[in-house]
Amino acid sequence: MAIAVVGSLGLDTIETPAGRVEEVLGGSAAYFSLAARHFLPVRIVAVVGSDFPASARAALEQEGLDLTELEVKEGRTFRWEGVYSRDMNTRETIRTELNVFETFRPDLSASTRALRHVFLANIDPVLQRQVLSQLTRPHLVLADTMNYWITTKRDELLKTLAKVRILLINEEEARQLTGEAVTHKAARAILTMGPETVVVKMGEHGAFLQGRNAYFVCPAFPIETVIDPTGAGDTFAGGFMGALARMGRVTDMNLRRATIYGCVLASFAVEEFSVGGLLNLKRAEVLRRAAAVLSMTRVTLDDTARLLR
Amino acid sequence: MAIAVVGSLGLDTIETPAGRVEEVLGGSAAYFSLAARHFLPVRIVAVVGSDFPASARAALEQEGLDLTELEVKEGRTFRWEGVYSRDMNTRETIRTELNVFETFRPDLSASTRALRHVFLANIDPVLQRQVLSQLTRPHLVLADTMNYWITTKRDELLKTLAKVRILLINEEEARQLTGEAVTHKAARAILTMGPETVVVKMGEHGAFLQGRNAYFVCPAFPIETVIDPTGAGDTFAGGFMGALARMGRVTDMNLRRATIYGCVLASFAVEEFSVGGLLNLKRAEVLRRAAAVLSMTRVTLDDTARLLR
Repeated sequence: MAIAVVGSLGLDTIETPAGRVEEVLGGSAAYFSLAARHFLPVRIVAVVGSDFPASARAALEQEGLDLTELEVKEGRTFRWEGVYSRDMNTRETIRTELNVFETFRPDLSASTRALRHVFLANIDPVLQRQVLSQLTRPHLVLADTMNYWITTKRDELLKTLAKVRILLINEEEARQLTGEAVTHKAARAILTMGPETVVVKMGEHGAFLQGRNAYFVCPAFPIETVIDPTGAGDTFAGGFMGALARMGRVTDMNLRRATIYGCVLASFAVEEFSVGGLLNLKRAEVLRRAAAVLSMTRVTLDDTARLLR
Repeated sequence: MAIAVVGSLGLDTIETPAGRVEEVLGGSAAYFSLAARHFLPVRIVAVVGSDFPASARAALEQEGLDLTELEVKEGRTFRWEGVYSRDMNTRETIRTELNVFETFRPDLSASTRALRHVFLANIDPVLQRQVLSQLTRPHLVLADTMNYWITTKRDELLKTLAKVRILLINEEEARQLTGEAVTHKAARAILTMGPETVVVKMGEHGAFLQGRNAYFVCPAFPIETVIDPTGAGDTFAGGFMGALARMGRVTDMNLRRATIYGCVLASFAVEEFSVGGLLNLKRAEVLRRAAAVLSMTRVTLDDTARLLR
């Protein structure tokens, strides 16, 4: 019943209005797994260099993550550096060093190939498909992507999307992928590309879920002091997929519940630099925020129909 | 039990990716009143020039709006021209001609002074306060404003806000007014300026309501083909205030319900140029969309607590 996540582990240098940190633990697989672990065991399929700090590895192990499929390769670990704007809604990438990630070609072990729940984090769509082709009985395959792949490897990405059950994507990327200027139209257009459901992440506005007959909107849990938005989308994916895989059946209500957990986990990620907000996170805190998100949209219109003249 | 709206009536020239219209009925009071009329009678306090088309006046009268307080002044009517970006999230003002609006000094009749529900649309905060000072028993006073007044008449605006019960404002303006980069922090800061509740309009992301102990988020009803976003905020205000005034008591639940109606009415406004989407709008259509908005956020987490490991 474990979830496999194929993505990056890296060392991030991040500058936000709240401060600057250097060479801290990052990467899509780190954020995803630290969120999904609340629901099911998570196995990380990734590569790091020989310089990957023992402390970073220990942090992941301490949270119970399965690193048996983590490759350690001679060389330098993936590195990323970014600077956020004052309102943190945009960021500039200062540098991306692929390093050992450049030649990453996941060759899954027999037990990983048999896993039924797989998250293809934002990596080269060719790699995403190579992983997919190794799975022996995939049930719930979710994927993420980004503008870089939409622009440079669109055809490969479309081939991957054809095999993905649920796509997680942000607003701008959804519009870019489909050429639709209106996000809701973009989401519906993605449903013709393969996925039966698409989850559009809207940052501080939460997320919405579009299925062929389903539509659900989840607001973000309001965070007054955002410290570092890095990894919020991957954390959302971890909360979403963890909850959904644990519930087992992909029903409209379970998709809605999973979206709530995605938003809730993401809210913890942005409260500290790096993965700090996700370490030592207690079950009770997750439940408290999930209840708070529900109360934020609770309303009835029982007796208001007669309000209209 | 009528609502008075003090604002502009004008002739708009609008260009959006969907087309271009010239000299069509517009102005904050037009949009507001065409939404609020579904709940209570609405009296428009505004000024137009002698060139105001009889057809525009007839359109308002046909929808049952009270024009007894509409001043017709020798001269030209207020005009505005704007061009929207491809995604319609930004617009450029090509020209603003105040014309007769420049010397508008509302002098309310005795019966209007006694109205308990008043909406101060986005006009000069000095004018807003002049209207306020004429009211003899104000109960529910709501106001809107815009970046222009925040920049050029901040002190006057603050004096007005001190006397307003609920402020409606958009995200960017909330941040600009308070100097807070995070919208939620901005909303809370506005609560220290006078209003007991602030409603932050987020365009295609809906709206949220922030009170001292209340927080509610309402998604927008998804419109696939937006034709013209002009007046969506004023229409939201009309739906919100109409519903709230009709319900009478300002409770947390009634504020939530009012927000739903604000989002619903706004969704009709953007589907046609000018006020076209609000004319001949049927009660059944409003109720259908209100129910749809509710279903978009309906979720329970009853049995999910045990999902967490």
